[in-house]
Amino acid sequence: MSQASLAAAASDETMRDEFFWLGEINKASAVINSEQGLLDKQKTPAIAQALEEVIEAGNQPGGERPKKVIEFEPLLIDAGGIDVTLLHAGRSSQDMHATFRAAILRDELLELATHLNATSKTLVDLADKHKDTIVPNYTNGVAAQPNSYGHQLLGHAAGLERDAQRIREAYARIDRSPMGTTVLNGTSWPLNRQRMADYLGFAALVDNAYDASQISSMDEPLEVGAVITRIALHAGNFIEDLLTQYADPQPWMLLQEGGDNTYVSSSMPQKRNPGLLNSTRSDASTAVTLALGPILQMHNITPGMSDPKDVETNSAIVDAGIKVLDKWDKILKALRVDPQRALDELNSDWTASQELADILMREHQLPFRVGHHFASGVVSYARAHDIKPLDFPYDQAQQIYSEVVTAEDPEQPHELPITESEFRAALDPKAIVNNRATRGGPQPAEMKRVLAEARTDLKEQNEWIAKKRDHIDASLDQLDKDFGTLLDTSDDH
Amino acid sequence: MSQASLAAAASDETMRDEFFWLGEINKASAVINSEQGLLDKQKTPAIAQALEEVIEAGNQPGGERPKKVIEFEPLLIDAGGIDVTLLHAGRSSQDMHATFRAAILRDELLELATHLNATSKTLVDLADKHKDTIVPNYTNGVAAQPNSYGHQLLGHAAGLERDAQRIREAYARIDRSPMGTTVLNGTSWPLNRQRMADYLGFAALVDNAYDASQISSMDEPLEVGAVITRIALHAGNFIEDLLTQYADPQPWMLLQEGGDNTYVSSSMPQKRNPGLLNSTRSDASTAVTLALGPILQMHNITPGMSDPKDVETNSAIVDAGIKVLDKWDKILKALRVDPQRALDELNSDWTASQELADILMREHQLPFRVGHHFASGVVSYARAHDIKPLDFPYDQAQQIYSEVVTAEDPEQPHELPITESEFRAALDPKAIVNNRATRGGPQPAEMKRVLAEARTDLKEQNEWIAKKRDHIDASLDQLDKDFGTLLDTSDDH
Amino acid sequence: MSQASLAAAASDETMRDEFFWLGEINKASAVINSEQGLLDKQKTPAIAQALEEVIEAGNQPGGERPKKVIEFEPLLIDAGGIDVTLLHAGRSSQDMHATFRAAILRDELLELATHLNATSKTLVDLADKHKDTIVPNYTNGVAAQPNSYGHQLLGHAAGLERDAQRIREAYARIDRSPMGTTVLNGTSWPLNRQRMADYLGFAALVDNAYDASQISSMDEPLEVGAVITRIALHAGNFIEDLLTQYADPQPWMLLQEGGDNTYVSSSMPQKRNPGLLNSTRSDASTAVTLALGPILQMHNITPGMSDPKDVETNSAIVDAGIKVLDKWDKILKALRVDPQRALDELNSDWTASQELADILMREHQLPFRVGHHFASGVVSYARAHDIKPLDFPYDQAQQIYSEVVTAEDPEQPHELPITESEFRAALDPKAIVNNRATRGGPQPAEMKRVLAEARTDLKEQNEWIAKKRDHIDASLDQLDKDFGTLLDTSDDH
Amino acid sequence: MSQASLAAAASDETMRDEFFWLGEINKASAVINSEQGLLDKQKTPAIAQALEEVIEAGNQPGGERPKKVIEFEPLLIDAGGIDVTLLHAGRSSQDMHATFRAAILRDELLELATHLNATSKTLVDLADKHKDTIVPNYTNGVAAQPNSYGHQLLGHAAGLERDAQRIREAYARIDRSPMGTTVLNGTSWPLNRQRMADYLGFAALVDNAYDASQISSMDEPLEVGAVITRIALHAGNFIEDLLTQYADPQPWMLLQEGGDNTYVSSSMPQKRNPGLLNSTRSDASTAVTLALGPILQMHNITPGMSDPKDVETNSAIVDAGIKVLDKWDKILKALRVDPQRALDELNSDWTASQELADILMREHQLPFRVGHHFASGVVSYARAHDIKPLDFPYDQAQQIYSEVVTAEDPEQPHELPITESEFRAALDPKAIVNNRATRGGPQPAEMKRVLAEARTDLKEQNEWIAKKRDHIDASLDQLDKDFGTLLDTSDDH
Repeated sequence: MSQASLAAAASDETMRDEFFWLGEINKASAVINSEQGLLDKQKTPAIAQALEEVIEAGNQPGGERPKKVIEFEPLLIDAGGIDVTLLHAGRSSQDMHATFRAAILRDELLELATHLNATSKTLVDLADKHKDTIVPNYTNGVAAQPNSYGHQLLGHAAGLERDAQRIREAYARIDRSPMGTTVLNGTSWPLNRQRMADYLGFAALVDNAYDASQISSMDEPLEVGAVITRIALHAGNFIEDLLTQYADPQPWMLLQEGGDNTYVSSSMPQKRNPGLLNSTRSDASTAVTLALGPILQMHNITPGMSDPKDVETNSAIVDAGIKVLDKWDKILKALRVDPQRALDELNSDWTASQELADILMREHQLPFRVGHHFASGVVSYARAHDIKPLDFPYDQAQQIYSEVVTAEDPEQPHELPITESEFRAALDPKAIVNNRATRGGPQPAEMKRVLAEARTDLKEQNEWIAKKRDHIDASLDQLDKDFGTLLDTSDDH
Repeated sequence: MSQASLAAAASDETMRDEFFWLGEINKASAVINSEQGLLDKQKTPAIAQALEEVIEAGNQPGGERPKKVIEFEPLLIDAGGIDVTLLHAGRSSQDMHATFRAAILRDELLELATHLNATSKTLVDLADKHKDTIVPNYTNGVAAQPNSYGHQLLGHAAGLERDAQRIREAYARIDRSPMGTTVLNGTSWPLNRQRMADYLGFAALVDNAYDASQISSMDEPLEVGAVITRIALHAGNFIEDLLTQYADPQPWMLLQEGGDNTYVSSSMPQKRNPGLLNSTRSDASTAVTLALGPILQMHNITPGMSDPKDVETNSAIVDAGIKVLDKWDKILKALRVDPQRALDELNSDWTASQELADILMREHQLPFRVGHHFASGVVSYARAHDIKPLDFPYDQAQQIYSEVVTAEDPEQPHELPITESEFRAALDPKAIVNNRATRGGPQPAEMKRVLAEARTDLKEQNEWIAKKRDHIDASLDQLDKDFGTLLDTSDDH
Repeated sequence: MSQASLAAAASDETMRDEFFWLGEINKASAVINSEQGLLDKQKTPAIAQALEEVIEAGNQPGGERPKKVIEFEPLLIDAGGIDVTLLHAGRSSQDMHATFRAAILRDELLELATHLNATSKTLVDLADKHKDTIVPNYTNGVAAQPNSYGHQLLGHAAGLERDAQRIREAYARIDRSPMGTTVLNGTSWPLNRQRMADYLGFAALVDNAYDASQISSMDEPLEVGAVITRIALHAGNFIEDLLTQYADPQPWMLLQEGGDNTYVSSSMPQKRNPGLLNSTRSDASTAVTLALGPILQMHNITPGMSDPKDVETNSAIVDAGIKVLDKWDKILKALRVDPQRALDELNSDWTASQELADILMREHQLPFRVGHHFASGVVSYARAHDIKPLDFPYDQAQQIYSEVVTAEDPEQPHELPITESEFRAALDPKAIVNNRATRGGPQPAEMKRVLAEARTDLKEQNEWIAKKRDHIDASLDQLDKDFGTLLDTSDDH
Repeated sequence: MSQASLAAAASDETMRDEFFWLGEINKASAVINSEQGLLDKQKTPAIAQALEEVIEAGNQPGGERPKKVIEFEPLLIDAGGIDVTLLHAGRSSQDMHATFRAAILRDELLELATHLNATSKTLVDLADKHKDTIVPNYTNGVAAQPNSYGHQLLGHAAGLERDAQRIREAYARIDRSPMGTTVLNGTSWPLNRQRMADYLGFAALVDNAYDASQISSMDEPLEVGAVITRIALHAGNFIEDLLTQYADPQPWMLLQEGGDNTYVSSSMPQKRNPGLLNSTRSDASTAVTLALGPILQMHNITPGMSDPKDVETNSAIVDAGIKVLDKWDKILKALRVDPQRALDELNSDWTASQELADILMREHQLPFRVGHHFASGVVSYARAHDIKPLDFPYDQAQQIYSEVVTAEDPEQPHELPITESEFRAALDPKAIVNNRATRGGPQPAEMKRVLAEARTDLKEQNEWIAKKRDHIDASLDQLDKDFGTLLDTSDDH
């Protein structure tokens, strides 16, 4: 859950902030240590009762929820006397804080994954809707090829799928429990680290005790920063592509006007400023900036220093990424494509000219470079005479062909080997897209396959999120149940 | 292979630079397309022969090795006439360049992994050597606990093992073939993308054709940058820890003097400057700086732009990381620990005082906070009277104990429940370390287990590297063999 | 005034936020345009009255203070009807927002300058106090020379004085009025830009109208970021130097314990963690991170985009710098030096050995390199035999001298030409410092001069701040007075 | 001179690299110290002769030019015996290296200033050429206003003029001599620091000796980085603006084709990729990346560390900035504007609509917001009916006016108060630009004034550069002359 969400949930006792985790750690210490004989069973009920009181008080509206061990313990002592510090066997602020930091980052990553998947789903749905919408695609800032807009969107979805993979990979390294490592070298108490990890819902231990608070604990925010950087950069790339339409006097794609999408200029009556695009790009730059924080915080310090570990700062990085994803989602939902304008632009840019060379080679064995030069000749002539593809005179094409072949490959027949109707068809953007034969291309069969796979990816990612969430929830439920037993005993007295 | 290594290997025909990969791609095009009937079998031998000539010429000492399709093709045409451009069926600079970029980054990552594993091995070997060397460990910049130096080193090795994981994860996303995606939307040629990927040794395809050159190709350098950042930051942390010894008038650990490790001041006769440490830290900052490059290059541009894709720039990032690893390795090999000085420092810092509280709680059920206050009282008294742990008067300890317990937990017996010899033993750093009971702690049994696991990790990582290298080599060998068949046919004519 | 301060001053009508400046701009428009005949004098009183009402309402506790022209104007229309929009002659959100951004950054920079000067003053005062305190100074992380601690502190003060210069330079480029440039190309209204600038307290105009909102307005946050970066890095350097003391078992300088300076470990009784140092270093890294924001926000966008212009974000950068300065100030005030420990450390490190070579060359014409080798020989012998400078046997020195001279400069007399008492005196750190002859050195006469100059710098910087503040205040007072005249007329009705 | 230039000039004896400056420092030491009696006049000629030999040897083609004091001194000793180390009185690698670093950065900044002024001059010349060319200007990514292209270019020139100011400011802080500060605290030798500074052409001393090598020396690269960042970001903004034209199917501005400006696609015959724009943007990102280096190198280290001081690294930052400026210059020279296309685009975007509201308010006292709504109504109607400004039916405008006034300001006369010809004239982009009345606007009178001022700025900056260069050259000439005197004496022997 993001810090923003945490704040919203302040009145909910399940808000999983530092205080919550300090409570859970204490609950688990009580359960495990009393079973193991490390905590006097006689004293356990009173200690458990004191802990329960402190937690309940913190869960009240406006209740105090201290974020540090040294502020939490005094509340416990107030509630149960100095004996409650028997709970502190083999523990330290170092491992307890490292534990809640990992637990909170873990929740943050699951929240991020949820928002990422929501935006990805919108991308895939939009791709499905626009699988047959033919638009110009650009390389090096110049219109290059006709493409299915859905195919283009699936390309962006593939980028986000890799970001989702990175979340899972980062998660696996964060979802490890430092508890029991005390400070640097462990403790002489034979604590059961595995049971503690299980109760707190961690999948693994941070094994080496020095690593736990000195190295791993500094790595974790760095993992998160790297993930957010990717997402924010992807968002910026998408926006910049879309924004070029706004400088075009006849754009083929714009945001639906109104709402927060666009706004009116206070001075220029004709303007509709794409506020949503510009503010999302700025938010993405903010996310990139904040995500540099862990690099700087971790830079040139000795191992274990607290600099990169601040919970609020690190949660703010994830929240900045979530904000970008949510606004990107809003952008996607506001997109309006004008297919006819897109087609006009494709034709006016001769983006289909490569197909001439391809057809001549594929069907008539003309070497590619010769066909390319023929097509270039057609385009040059057309531009010089302001002719659009659909209007190009066939006899002029024949003449250019003959000249090029004569000069470059004189053994070839000098007649243009395609008919006028084949010539016209070759320049039809829609036909080009539909006739693609490439695995991963925009032709209907491949679009169908790739769309299906993208939906499978979304589903698996959702299942992964749910599974991770369920594991944490179930672990904490079990802890509650087992801790309840200590309390029940207490009530018997 | 790093760019630096590439340069060194310039006379070796297997140098895998852009030219090499353009050659391999062309070889694979010839083999696959002729088998598939996309390339006229009659014309294939001559084309293959022209290609072979161009490659051999480039492999000569001082031979021209162009790095771009538009510079490579003219050499082919010179060697074999315009017909060689039949090879260009369904190809583009976009997918060919994206392919050699991925192939080169892939080699770079394997080289990085090799150097990382070498430094990790040195760390683990040194940890083994120092598994019984007791030194102070620091938290928040202050001596905190005695620890096995070997245990501490294994903590650093655990950090590098996570960096190795990240290399493997990044590798999986880079080891994918864009070939066949042409530009943005594929081609009408029914190319066999999978066979091309197999010949080039890729484990997978970049599926979506738009993704291939527009999104994935920009992601890849970002992956690499993030990996290098981690490694460089880890190096900096290690160095800063070591460097604090140099400000200590009686350091317990220094670099072996001489070589490039330390250097003499031109003006101050007493000084030995740890040049290797300072220059490695600076090199690590350089690596972090260069690794920010892909973030900036990819920021706020439209998809597919070439900004983040420059091979030389991206190879330089990996090389900067390799340089850091190599110098870190050298540092490790130059480390000289003085165990007696380390012990003196431990004793002078009362780093063992926590054990007093632990023993009192574990064996005498004294609440931790009471024991902590007793130990604090001992330390305060000792500092005020400049007494070292081994000299602390037992009767003074008894008195402090009695005072603390009276004030804080009066129901406890007021007599210090440990004997003088137990009191002395509790303050023995070596005993503390050996008596740790924590999984992942520095006690001999755990050190043995963790050392063994670290060696297993190293072995598995080496196997992974070897397997990946072998797969590429075997794939290219197969390509050579199959391409040779085309040439043999050619020789028959 | 920082945003934090702004919030605190929310009930104060002089809080200079966006709303305040929109009010002032409107007041100035009313005064200037009515005088110039651009605003109908008949309609002016009602318009002025409406404006006064809106401002007064915003100044009430909890009053609405919109931050944008398009939210401010509706309040004006509510208060005075559509005629109030006659005020908007030749204006735009672009120039009005650019103006309040510059005005707020200007206030922020003055606030920053104030805090910088406060910290600098503490540095200089502390330097005065410690002008005779001799401590080790370090180069390359190793004790190098005895120095006056005051002299060292004045070095840091010199760094901050350069930061103060940078503030003044940045201020000059920010203290320029964009008002009247409307959007991009000005307006057909003959507005008096100079009078507007004068009323708003600006020292100059942004001349070119395109520059105003498209280029200059993006540069300004970048200026501020660069200034904050310097300050934060200086703070980090100072802290890292101080922090090495904490790893020293016998530090010669520490923070006064208690307060927020240091805190007790929850588990380790002996520890006093220098929390203030570590958190200030982290805050400095945060300031550096946030100060990278303007670079990223301005990167690869078209001119004039709003990305780098957000007032809250940019104010937060300055506030982050102010926080660092304030905590640095607290650190300085908490510093406690132990001169005897410092002296012991100096002696134990042979930091005075260079003086031997200097004296031999200065007074006995021994080439420096020979003297350096003699001193090195002494240090090596001493280290090998664990001898401190004050205990070094003179006859051993004589013997080493003879050997070195024989080997390296045999024409020199072979007898050590300084007496035993001269030999001892040469190794006295205090004498070394006092006998420095360098302009800008730590000897008393130079310390006196440099301290006096540092105080003059502080005074001049304070005067500069006061002068800039007074100019703004006086300008706004004049505006209030002239605007009041419009209202008085209004009251006559 | 940039490092690149340095390399080119390797055979030129005036190449001012580290070796050169070590030579000059030694020459100055010889001259000053012998005059002052700190160097035995008897021994001076031989020492001077040895120095001269070492310098001459280094100036030979392929001559050894060591970059460090500890590598330079042995050459001197080889040439003149151990007595030459008498020159080392009161010196250290620290101050000598700090001095050559400042001297080299100083030269680099002058080289940067030269290239900056060259690009600025091209901007101003182009602005002059295009002072009457009317083009669309964009805000928020959308066409906003007609403007003189020359006016827009002068806005960019104003940004570069501020960058030039920053160079001068940074220069003043770098053009200060550390010589004589030895290490940290000066020396007991009464060296004449001012004469040394004068001989080396420095305008001032770094006063405090601790500051010299510990603080100031780390600040200087930071200054340079901040300057380069500004320039590179300005370049990127300019390019992004220009690049939007390439996505426009009918651009009004492009680069002249050919050369390195644009290149042909290997697969798509119709494409002309603006390679120069994209590679310059990438180079700008590289410059920004490298300019972050000093921040990272200086971050979290102790004062004086060598991390940020590497000459080659810091020179590379300036060189990266120079490369960007040179390519920006090339872009400017390649720009081709199509005024008719620009006008068509202006008209198709209704960018002149604000003028309607302005005229109605200025000449007919219609409140701005009412006029704005009238103009909005006209634009909305026009867009709905696909009408261009020049074709808008006047009677429709009358009807919209009447409706808006009736609804919003019923006391106004309901008839559109401007005639049909006035209505048409109001929408003429050229007339709008020419009728601007704003100081700093694009109207001819202001363009003339601002152009003249821009030329004055360029001239003054050139004079500043020349003056600084002359001062250094004259100082070094004087040193050569005075040092020659020592040699002449030598020749007498």
